[in-house]
Amino acid sequence: MTAAVLSIGTELTRGELVNSNAAWLSAALSDLGFDVVENVTVADDKERIATTFNRLTKSVRVVVCTGGLGPTTDDVTASAIAAALGVALVRDQASFEYIRRKLALSGREMSESNAKQADVPASAEVLPNAVGTAPGFVVEANGASAFFLPGVPKEMDRLYRDCVMPRIRSLSATDAFQVRFKLFGLPESQVGDRLADVEASHSGVTIGYRVHFPEVEVKVLARADTHLVARERVERAAIDVRSRLSPWIFGEGDDTFPAHVGRLLRGRGFTLAVAESCTGGLLGHLLTRESGASDFFVADAVTYANSAKAKFLGLAEDVLRWHGAVSGEVAAAMAEGVKRTAQADLGVGITGIAGPGGATESKPIGLVYISVAGPTGTIVREHTFTGDRNQVQMRAAYTALQMVRMVCLDPASSARDITARLPI
Amino acid sequence: MTAAVLSIGTELTRGELVNSNAAWLSAALSDLGFDVVENVTVADDKERIATTFNRLTKSVRVVVCTGGLGPTTDDVTASAIAAALGVALVRDQASFEYIRRKLALSGREMSESNAKQADVPASAEVLPNAVGTAPGFVVEANGASAFFLPGVPKEMDRLYRDCVMPRIRSLSATDAFQVRFKLFGLPESQVGDRLADVEASHSGVTIGYRVHFPEVEVKVLARADTHLVARERVERAAIDVRSRLSPWIFGEGDDTFPAHVGRLLRGRGFTLAVAESCTGGLLGHLLTRESGASDFFVADAVTYANSAKAKFLGLAEDVLRWHGAVSGEVAAAMAEGVKRTAQADLGVGITGIAGPGGATESKPIGLVYISVAGPTGTIVREHTFTGDRNQVQMRAAYTALQMVRMVCLDPASSARDITARLPI
Repeated sequence: MTAAVLSIGTELTRGELVNSNAAWLSAALSDLGFDVVENVTVADDKERIATTFNRLTKSVRVVVCTGGLGPTTDDVTASAIAAALGVALVRDQASFEYIRRKLALSGREMSESNAKQADVPASAEVLPNAVGTAPGFVVEANGASAFFLPGVPKEMDRLYRDCVMPRIRSLSATDAFQVRFKLFGLPESQVGDRLADVEASHSGVTIGYRVHFPEVEVKVLARADTHLVARERVERAAIDVRSRLSPWIFGEGDDTFPAHVGRLLRGRGFTLAVAESCTGGLLGHLLTRESGASDFFVADAVTYANSAKAKFLGLAEDVLRWHGAVSGEVAAAMAEGVKRTAQADLGVGITGIAGPGGATESKPIGLVYISVAGPTGTIVREHTFTGDRNQVQMRAAYTALQMVRMVCLDPASSARDITARLPI
Repeated sequence: MTAAVLSIGTELTRGELVNSNAAWLSAALSDLGFDVVENVTVADDKERIATTFNRLTKSVRVVVCTGGLGPTTDDVTASAIAAALGVALVRDQASFEYIRRKLALSGREMSESNAKQADVPASAEVLPNAVGTAPGFVVEANGASAFFLPGVPKEMDRLYRDCVMPRIRSLSATDAFQVRFKLFGLPESQVGDRLADVEASHSGVTIGYRVHFPEVEVKVLARADTHLVARERVERAAIDVRSRLSPWIFGEGDDTFPAHVGRLLRGRGFTLAVAESCTGGLLGHLLTRESGASDFFVADAVTYANSAKAKFLGLAEDVLRWHGAVSGEVAAAMAEGVKRTAQADLGVGITGIAGPGGATESKPIGLVYISVAGPTGTIVREHTFTGDRNQVQMRAAYTALQMVRMVCLDPASSARDITARLPI
């Protein structure tokens, strides 16, 4: 069954806003088993909206539209669709009352531009908006169902789930099921290479990739006549995916690597303290973005200047002078220093050259030393990360999390070892 | 003059990827003075690409297409366009040689799928790709010029600037000029209210808004027959914009607020040390994302646990016990403690409740105390920020930057003052 997504808004055709709504709706429709054949974006222009509406309703079964339902004069979607259908624009009394009450609750009067949001084409069925003011609506035209939703993402999301999904689920001849694996440590191209033959050996299964740098998501999706068959297909294919990627899979769905490592620490009952130099607080930020970090996170000493490394971590000036601030010895001393000072179970030390300045002949941009001081000793790793400053910082912070993960999984692994050079 | 953007890729119609290329191209075309009437995205499907190509070339003067020029079997753009034009697909020898040499440099053999990237419609003019392997091309059809660029953003970007822009600049009957102001501290809706009448009083000028939370961008754009007239219009309108928003404007173009504050610190010759609790390293991260932070940034003590506040900042247990960790007194002691320990000119202290857990009856989610210890004293501010955990953290970090900015602009302003309650 085919579908199309129509986005309406001059801010989109002018490129002032990236159209994330279209991607969200396309993914949601694909997940229901629809074949989304086209995404179209047009400006707030009555004639162009009407022409595109006619073209799309003639070529697909379901059209989902967003935008142009607001109170301002440039919001013309409802009147454009009324014109395309050759019907009048009428005021929906229930929506009018709802908007009036909603405004009254925040002490505001109903203006004519607010009232205009209750206007819908005469032949439309209203879709009540529990989140915002403008209602959505649905019309039938040229053999298609066309749904009109507000452009505000949280309103669109809610109306889609409440009103659109229940109505179109049965239209799709196929049902769909999916699993999303989250990975860290393997580049997207290598993920693709390892899964190259999975689609071919599992009929009806699609493998999709998405990068949330530096994490990679692998989506295993199947369509079938019934939910059960789709699910069985995904589960069989997922066994193949897992067997090829298990060292890099850390979670499923909306999981993130920092949250995963946080759960491992909590599960072990380990507390963690961090000492950062070139990553400047990024590792602490990643760990504390998730709520509940106080269960394991004690402190982060961002010792950017050498003087701070001495003051906050008790680093001997000799170590800094002898080995240089960017060295395995300093990373280890930072990890051990912050662990001792903060009285944590694990300490992490990161020192390196994020660039674009600061490189020397023997120490290139991207050179980073990462150390984890654990219950039985201290590990140190040397890496040369590629990418710009922000990518080097992100790769370094994630690699530190990877090392913390290994120590959580096998606490005895933290024996001093300065030899390994792991590319990423 | 009208233009359209055509994006090709099943990963887009499935919603696996947000189409930021379309926004980038739409903005670039708008900036040249084109009226972008439509953005269309279709799957890697020969027939649908050809149909859409025919429809768009019949309705606009310039079509810019991206995607589907890669080496894999699902990249079918060139053959779809050859079919639409009724011409053969031919191998461009110069591109073939270029790809072969490029692969040889990295020690790789040329495969048939690599060679396929040199195939273009017989009537096309090749646009050499200096960044990647696949060349772009341009064809004339139905009175329109249609440019085909790779979907990889940095390749698209480069080819657009090198080959598309010089060819279409003269087509646009109008020229355009723009200024982008960057603001912090005023919500987008209030920015809009303050500028409500600017468009009306400056003909040919458009005001656009874009939120990069918590920063807001205001774009002042004018189109005119000549660059000079467009520029004059923008400059006149920009005077009005500046006069209404000057307290909140910190920069122009791609400037960011953390970079701006960094420049102020560098200009004053001030060094900065930070002590964070509920923001967990975010402020340090924002300041060190920009290169050259080592000129002013000394250290960041992320003292998440109370024990760490005592250890790293020398906070008396009494202060914590008496006032509670979330208090103006503790924020001030953190700012003064980190300034003293790190021997910096300025110290910042942030403590609060980012949520969703941790609130008490007297201390709600979003309550944050921020302190700056400066050359002549210590300022403390109490805020109750709205939003989810990540928004509270971001608002707190930006508000701390705002306070540092004020002290840089007027160092004498740092006198102890616990009374002000500033909403944001």
